[in-house]
Amino acid sequence: MIDVRSDTVTHPTPAMRQAMFDAVVGDDVYGDDPTVQQLETLAATILGKEAALFVPSGNFGNQLALLSHCQRGDEVILGDDCHIVWHETGGAAVIAGVQLRTIASPDGVLASAEIKKRIRTGDDIHAPRTGLICLENAHSNGRVIPLADMQAVWDVAQQHAIPVHLDGARIFNAAAHLGCDVRELTQYCDTVMCCLSKGLAAPVGSILAGSAAFIARARKNRKMMGGGLRQAGVLAAPGILALTDMVKRLPDDHANAIYLAQRLAALPGITLDIASVQINLVWFQLPATLDTSALMAALAEAGIKANPPEHGMMRLATHWQVGRDDIERIVAIFAAQLA
Amino acid sequence: MIDVRSDTVTHPTPAMRQAMFDAVVGDDVYGDDPTVQQLETLAATILGKEAALFVPSGNFGNQLALLSHCQRGDEVILGDDCHIVWHETGGAAVIAGVQLRTIASPDGVLASAEIKKRIRTGDDIHAPRTGLICLENAHSNGRVIPLADMQAVWDVAQQHAIPVHLDGARIFNAAAHLGCDVRELTQYCDTVMCCLSKGLAAPVGSILAGSAAFIARARKNRKMMGGGLRQAGVLAAPGILALTDMVKRLPDDHANAIYLAQRLAALPGITLDIASVQINLVWFQLPATLDTSALMAALAEAGIKANPPEHGMMRLATHWQVGRDDIERIVAIFAAQLA
Amino acid sequence: MIDVRSDTVTHPTPAMRQAMFDAVVGDDVYGDDPTVQQLETLAATILGKEAALFVPSGNFGNQLALLSHCQRGDEVILGDDCHIVWHETGGAAVIAGVQLRTIASPDGVLASAEIKKRIRTGDDIHAPRTGLICLENAHSNGRVIPLADMQAVWDVAQQHAIPVHLDGARIFNAAAHLGCDVRELTQYCDTVMCCLSKGLAAPVGSILAGSAAFIARARKNRKMMGGGLRQAGVLAAPGILALTDMVKRLPDDHANAIYLAQRLAALPGITLDIASVQINLVWFQLPATLDTSALMAALAEAGIKANPPEHGMMRLATHWQVGRDDIERIVAIFAAQLA
Amino acid sequence: MIDVRSDTVTHPTPAMRQAMFDAVVGDDVYGDDPTVQQLETLAATILGKEAALFVPSGNFGNQLALLSHCQRGDEVILGDDCHIVWHETGGAAVIAGVQLRTIASPDGVLASAEIKKRIRTGDDIHAPRTGLICLENAHSNGRVIPLADMQAVWDVAQQHAIPVHLDGARIFNAAAHLGCDVRELTQYCDTVMCCLSKGLAAPVGSILAGSAAFIARARKNRKMMGGGLRQAGVLAAPGILALTDMVKRLPDDHANAIYLAQRLAALPGITLDIASVQINLVWFQLPATLDTSALMAALAEAGIKANPPEHGMMRLATHWQVGRDDIERIVAIFAAQLA
Repeated sequence: MIDVRSDTVTHPTPAMRQAMFDAVVGDDVYGDDPTVQQLETLAATILGKEAALFVPSGNFGNQLALLSHCQRGDEVILGDDCHIVWHETGGAAVIAGVQLRTIASPDGVLASAEIKKRIRTGDDIHAPRTGLICLENAHSNGRVIPLADMQAVWDVAQQHAIPVHLDGARIFNAAAHLGCDVRELTQYCDTVMCCLSKGLAAPVGSILAGSAAFIARARKNRKMMGGGLRQAGVLAAPGILALTDMVKRLPDDHANAIYLAQRLAALPGITLDIASVQINLVWFQLPATLDTSALMAALAEAGIKANPPEHGMMRLATHWQVGRDDIERIVAIFAAQLA
Repeated sequence: MIDVRSDTVTHPTPAMRQAMFDAVVGDDVYGDDPTVQQLETLAATILGKEAALFVPSGNFGNQLALLSHCQRGDEVILGDDCHIVWHETGGAAVIAGVQLRTIASPDGVLASAEIKKRIRTGDDIHAPRTGLICLENAHSNGRVIPLADMQAVWDVAQQHAIPVHLDGARIFNAAAHLGCDVRELTQYCDTVMCCLSKGLAAPVGSILAGSAAFIARARKNRKMMGGGLRQAGVLAAPGILALTDMVKRLPDDHANAIYLAQRLAALPGITLDIASVQINLVWFQLPATLDTSALMAALAEAGIKANPPEHGMMRLATHWQVGRDDIERIVAIFAAQLA
Repeated sequence: MIDVRSDTVTHPTPAMRQAMFDAVVGDDVYGDDPTVQQLETLAATILGKEAALFVPSGNFGNQLALLSHCQRGDEVILGDDCHIVWHETGGAAVIAGVQLRTIASPDGVLASAEIKKRIRTGDDIHAPRTGLICLENAHSNGRVIPLADMQAVWDVAQQHAIPVHLDGARIFNAAAHLGCDVRELTQYCDTVMCCLSKGLAAPVGSILAGSAAFIARARKNRKMMGGGLRQAGVLAAPGILALTDMVKRLPDDHANAIYLAQRLAALPGITLDIASVQINLVWFQLPATLDTSALMAALAEAGIKANPPEHGMMRLATHWQVGRDDIERIVAIFAAQLA
Repeated sequence: MIDVRSDTVTHPTPAMRQAMFDAVVGDDVYGDDPTVQQLETLAATILGKEAALFVPSGNFGNQLALLSHCQRGDEVILGDDCHIVWHETGGAAVIAGVQLRTIASPDGVLASAEIKKRIRTGDDIHAPRTGLICLENAHSNGRVIPLADMQAVWDVAQQHAIPVHLDGARIFNAAAHLGCDVRELTQYCDTVMCCLSKGLAAPVGSILAGSAAFIARARKNRKMMGGGLRQAGVLAAPGILALTDMVKRLPDDHANAIYLAQRLAALPGITLDIASVQINLVWFQLPATLDTSALMAALAEAGIKANPPEHGMMRLATHWQVGRDDIERIVAIFAAQLA
């Protein structure tokens, strides 16, 4: 089977399975799990923050960040198509009790001028206080936000003493694309969430990193949200491999995505902007004339799992379980259907 | 004193004071106040809805509508510059627990296509359900939303079985501008909030109207929010005059606003778009060279209360306590300062 | 008509109606209403606190106190049968987001030892922080909490630096019963809510008083909850009479309640504990053999509004519209039915 | 090392580590993890409910139950010393937005009469609706609630059509003590949460079980709370062993607890009620004269981890990593210190 629906489908590697088997564990709710502590220390260092916290999922980490940064009723400025708005089930208003202020974000970029004119100090009794600005990099639309754009937002935030949270579910993909250390990105945020799963292949878990005081607050809020886990070392052990080994091979996924994109772009009727392929996600438009049911059936028969196109737009993901041979098999199916 | 800061500053008329004095009252928490009942019945009829509820303020009525329409975690689509977003202190996330999805609204108009592409059914576990669409007419920016634009939003909402709430704080101004019955506007919403204060001059209170089932739900929620009042008939009595007498004279306020606008537009250095003066609010740009401190001092000395300009933009409001003579006095000050 | 269902049914006095008629008003959302300011200053002085805020209802004032004292997730210790638990529609969890910790309160008294053992500092990640202790005096069950009991709770609260809020909806009744200045009660709380309606007969409104910093916070939260009113001076004017004139006659209501109680206790079959009649509320048990439908019908026919007994227990209230003659008429009906 | 602080400290067994290593996994957020599905089906069967859901922790499962049963503002009746009140960081008011109504629960038993008199239908606008009753069995105080007491609460709940949630973090301990199938307990609840960790030794995770409709709702709410995990099969695999193998040996833990209790009770100065040792938790009172610092130091030196006594009361837990030899070592330390 080849699964190109997303990079969330990645299985743990054999080394990760061995690490789970061997993990030294303790009760992490009591702060007793040495493997979790090792992961949190490692993650804080890599992400350039004072402290880090293991959380059950990226969604959990983002919601925990909203809750730990803001007072109820605060306003959060963020992109209209970001993950927090789009894929987190409306949790921001329920758990953190914050008011979202969504703004347009072409290619995932928030214009600092658009943010600036929405900032509110909260001094006026009519107005909530702007409690947080959220960025997402790499964006779940596959785009990488340039460092200069992050810095511009950061500068506005600093001028108004407003914290910035970075949804860095795929931050290592962003750093790989930009060819920079991940800390060059995280210098422009107060807190960052990164996933150990997705392209990094750990089975379960994400990291929330920030100042020591913030993480202490988040640790208590994590308990309130039900995210205090017991022998979490069994998840932290593969997480350590995610951050030490798997991050190194993300460029391979990106190269494979470019290769897949080039091969697809060469097929008749497919519209694909190579410049949009920045990480491990490939988007393209199928011709309106294509029988998409037949395409999906052919892919399934060939053992290829893919999400069906929406309005003719299709997305494929590469990851450690997708090699060049797999790409050839995928392209062959498209070629046959488009012939 | 002439107070042109807003129409919220209106004093009750002598007839309203007499009505308060004479009001027959009862304990409205127990449903015993005949004057409140009379007002609610009258308001429901005028607004073309099954039932209506007296609430302490427009802000209260809007927040109560969010709470009574939505489940916590639902998403609400509304304009980025509407009153609920801009001037209600972030209450939507605290009280109703709903996620706001703010979209651009040039001149207060929400494009139905922009709404349509954000509607979500809630079937996907990743996505909140769109629980409500909110419109505002007349908009607090002074613009009246054309009937066709309201209908376009209503049609999209109906297709997806999503309720529409109308923030009609100044709905009678909108109807006066359009020259239509207010029910031509409210046919395009499930619920409507209208203020008895502002241009209608009642001292305290607003109305929330909708289906009988909705109002029953809202009545309980009003109690939870602390808005169940005892002998509220003393407020309902002037409210009845607001809906029966004061609505008739809104065209005078509009004519005065146009007159004020025309006089100001004729002054050197003032930039004013007459087409933007649709209700009782007049916006205009002062020349950058003007000493605004001197202007504000001169206005104050002449007994004229006005809000200072922001970035050179100034807003004046007309209402029942502002007549042509007052306008002449106001214009004279501006003329002197701009000379 | 004689209405003895509750003291919430009181009509404004003629002097109050005149005060509404004459009220000097302004837009209180902008802090411009002199009559509201006069009321707030007066109330702060009488209640012995730095500042006070006019709110639409007692329920509103209590919920606003919870919201303004606590962080979401804090725990509030209070009596199992207090008004906040019993009659405020579950608002504490929705608006303030606080966890109630209800304890037994025989005759409305909270044992300080029971409070003490539930206090939590919030240092442990498993535990919420105790954010507030709430008392109620006079209790809505008609009992007055002795000063010594209030002091005992206050002492425990002070030791742990936890604020105390007093639901003083009928605090002037409590002070009248104890024969003390109301400040002898309010010395044992950080904030107090008192009603201007009920026995004091103002048509609408209550007061929340506390430190200047607390009231500033509450003022913004009042706006968020929709309780910012415009020309609220029309309500503040009778409120001033409530605090200056009407408080003086509460002993008459209490004496009438005792008189009513004594007359009823003398009737065959009625069980009534005179010692329980401490304010203007009279409870008694009817004989199981009595035809209560006939009783209610006879009362109604005589123009007497009363709430029907629950499990044979009946409550009657005295207030400024209930005189000795009215009491005789009421007792006569009971006597006839019990004969 | 011997760790008798709690049963939450249990390490996964070698068989569990092997199961993690071998686990067949998929992306469970997309419903693709066969091992999670196998666990959920198995758990539903064992617990006698239509469906079950894997959740990250017991705390998460309880809070998810509150959220999925109740509307915001509903009231929940539960014991004053239950886990939801005591150890879940005040989450009930933040996430579910429900009002807790805590009642005394001697030995963990809620008197059905006490529940009954607090039930509210929500018809009155003053009152929240009772949305849920929560029980806990085995109670975290070590007591097992008799079946008859559970049934009495269930009968009251059924009469008023109110759902019952059972915090069954240690439900298999309760069943082992009672010598009954766990379904004899779960017949008296609509939903049940049970932990796979604690005495059952799985590293991470709990189960929430109920009707198919409830679990569908909970599945979406789990996503909102951030508890949707990816390749959760690595946690489900040891969870399956928890439910199939580890449950069988709980009687050994109980026998060891009794043995430990008997040995301690025989020591001079220790007060211990053998009847209170119903599961794997042993409570006892130390003599006031004992030097507890010396005791804790001696335990630590002997490689025994225990929580220090509070007010002289101490608790020790048995589990699969505590054998008879370990118990002898523990008792020897106490004997030496008490000699």
